[in-house]
Amino acid sequence: MKVLVINCGSSSLKYQLINMENEESLAQGLVERIGIEGSVLTQKVPGKDKYIIEQPMADHKDAIKLVLEALVDETHGVIASMDEISAVGHRVVHGGEKYAESVLINDEVMASLEECVKLAPLHNPANIIGINACKSLMPSTPMVAVFDTAFHQTMPKTAYIYPLPYELYENHGIRKYGFHGTSHKFVSAECAKMLGKDIKDVKIITCHLGNGASLAAIKNGQCVDTSMGFTPLEGIAMGTRCGNIDPAIVTFLQKECNMSAAEVDNLMNKKSGVFGISGVSSDFRDIEDAAAQGNERAILALDVFNYRVREMIGAYAAAMGGVDAVVFTAGLGENAIETRLDICKGLEFLGIELDAEKNNVRGKAREISKDGAKVKAFVIPTNEELVIARDTKALTV
Amino acid sequence: MKVLVINCGSSSLKYQLINMENEESLAQGLVERIGIEGSVLTQKVPGKDKYIIEQPMADHKDAIKLVLEALVDETHGVIASMDEISAVGHRVVHGGEKYAESVLINDEVMASLEECVKLAPLHNPANIIGINACKSLMPSTPMVAVFDTAFHQTMPKTAYIYPLPYELYENHGIRKYGFHGTSHKFVSAECAKMLGKDIKDVKIITCHLGNGASLAAIKNGQCVDTSMGFTPLEGIAMGTRCGNIDPAIVTFLQKECNMSAAEVDNLMNKKSGVFGISGVSSDFRDIEDAAAQGNERAILALDVFNYRVREMIGAYAAAMGGVDAVVFTAGLGENAIETRLDICKGLEFLGIELDAEKNNVRGKAREISKDGAKVKAFVIPTNEELVIARDTKALTV
Repeated sequence: MKVLVINCGSSSLKYQLINMENEESLAQGLVERIGIEGSVLTQKVPGKDKYIIEQPMADHKDAIKLVLEALVDETHGVIASMDEISAVGHRVVHGGEKYAESVLINDEVMASLEECVKLAPLHNPANIIGINACKSLMPSTPMVAVFDTAFHQTMPKTAYIYPLPYELYENHGIRKYGFHGTSHKFVSAECAKMLGKDIKDVKIITCHLGNGASLAAIKNGQCVDTSMGFTPLEGIAMGTRCGNIDPAIVTFLQKECNMSAAEVDNLMNKKSGVFGISGVSSDFRDIEDAAAQGNERAILALDVFNYRVREMIGAYAAAMGGVDAVVFTAGLGENAIETRLDICKGLEFLGIELDAEKNNVRGKAREISKDGAKVKAFVIPTNEELVIARDTKALTV
Repeated sequence: MKVLVINCGSSSLKYQLINMENEESLAQGLVERIGIEGSVLTQKVPGKDKYIIEQPMADHKDAIKLVLEALVDETHGVIASMDEISAVGHRVVHGGEKYAESVLINDEVMASLEECVKLAPLHNPANIIGINACKSLMPSTPMVAVFDTAFHQTMPKTAYIYPLPYELYENHGIRKYGFHGTSHKFVSAECAKMLGKDIKDVKIITCHLGNGASLAAIKNGQCVDTSMGFTPLEGIAMGTRCGNIDPAIVTFLQKECNMSAAEVDNLMNKKSGVFGISGVSSDFRDIEDAAAQGNERAILALDVFNYRVREMIGAYAAAMGGVDAVVFTAGLGENAIETRLDICKGLEFLGIELDAEKNNVRGKAREISKDGAKVKAFVIPTNEELVIARDTKALTV
């Protein structure tokens, strides 16, 4: 069977068609600037030229129509007809407390997703639009929702309740949810395989370090804590997000700098993180270049990022009563050789020691710890699309 | 010489007269409801009856006048005349970046304290009022300001810079300052003595757990990180303060619950922490009683508090590249036997193991770790007044 995986943003859409017989990616693509002048679709198929379609797309339905056309295109496509798509898996950011697992989409599920919009106003609406667009174009194809939050639903209450009036949890759902769940799930399962152990017997800290970044503490296969919280703003420093700060700063900026709540939100989400400290870029490669040229704020930005990951690793080891393995994944985690080395500097007391030679790797699954290190460290490329496709297959065959 | 230590709140004042020949406390007292109906002074002198004066006090000058009268009172006092007070040491909450040490108060210092009001609007104004009141009553007595923030000024920039636009640090002084500095300084020095080691050779995590609570990572005698931040709201959960939460919750409450910034500030400072979760009290003894009777939210509040301290210990071990000793101090840290046990549960992998028998102690300096534990644990009663008196003596003799 072939599964189409869809990840909708507000004006963009990522997709991948996966052959579930061998879990191979047949095609992947990106649609950008949906509903904006300059809409463009870019599709990559192994062994073929890149396929670019520049044409107006008024909405996500237009975009998905074009995706399907690209997939069946005689020259650039990979399937003969839409009927070859057995099911569609949709990434949905927020499943609230209702979904600890992926779910076959029906009317009741759609209603629940609407309810979660309040919790993820920036993300869930786009996900819902994408699902509706797909449903109207492929009315008889089963669809599955795979939630970024689901894997973290195993967290104990001690980890997910904030020290706030309890009524805020009961009445407004204010609690830690966590995100990047499919990624943490995937790389922790891969890690257990590479350790040659049952995941039920190991304590793993997974570091999903991309432009958005989060850590998870995974004990015996279950997430027991994660660094993103009620929203994807909490936790470690990120590309443009601040992560944990003194919450009093939020109101200080309003009172002392005459900013509105919306302006502070924008500042914390779009102008902070390593971009805010360095003033250079949210792209770590740009910051590393500036740091190499002696830019002090760029050096500081990298130091702060690495320090906060390092502290979180210590915190999660404490949360689990120890740690057997640390995994680095996502854009930065898979590729930033120096970043990994620097994060682990000073963690020798935990038994974490990287081997500089083995760590000299980008984008490939590999153990990177020293021979005999008490805690194994790994680079494991994440594959959120594959998790979505697997869950979709499991719920539709 | 005798040093008077003054700690002014907005409507209260704590004082202590200390004989610096032997560092003994001669008298200590509390003035409450200054400028409010029902003003009262309570003074305790070792070996004498409690001395209570109930009379109107319009302002802090009235209050300090009464303090001086109580100290020289023929029956209840401890000195023959005000002239026996060689110097006054004032606790000042915020010294900004300017003061990494205590300082002899002069006009320039007073101007600097005024500048710091913006950073500590709830605390510094009362401190300034207290100093001015003392100066007008004892114009020729030298006075010293001892800052809650000073000890933490050794933190590296990596620890004190937030992942926010760097301009907020440059233009508004938004950075981590840390508080409870005199307490962390005192107990870490005592800890080194109890270890029989030079403080320059040890890594200590100090847990100041009172109604306000903070941890500090002290490496080779220098604070390298602490859990309170720009304000005393950040960090672990406290009696009524939330500590670290997703900063997006602050604006969510404003947008979704129609709260003003001031209302959210009040909620985070006065209605959160273990009080907010339990709904019972901010006093841990009340919460423990409720928990013992099966109150689930009370149990949850204690679990969340202990969990967040435990995680912070892990984080600070990571920050220092290891840990040699953990110290518990302040009301809860010195007295809450179960709390200490529960915090350390699961930290055996770090080498932290409490001895249940030795841990059965309240308010006395004692090692509480198991014989042979890799990391030593201690209860050490804090004595902020003594630190203030020592610094005052050092700067005035």
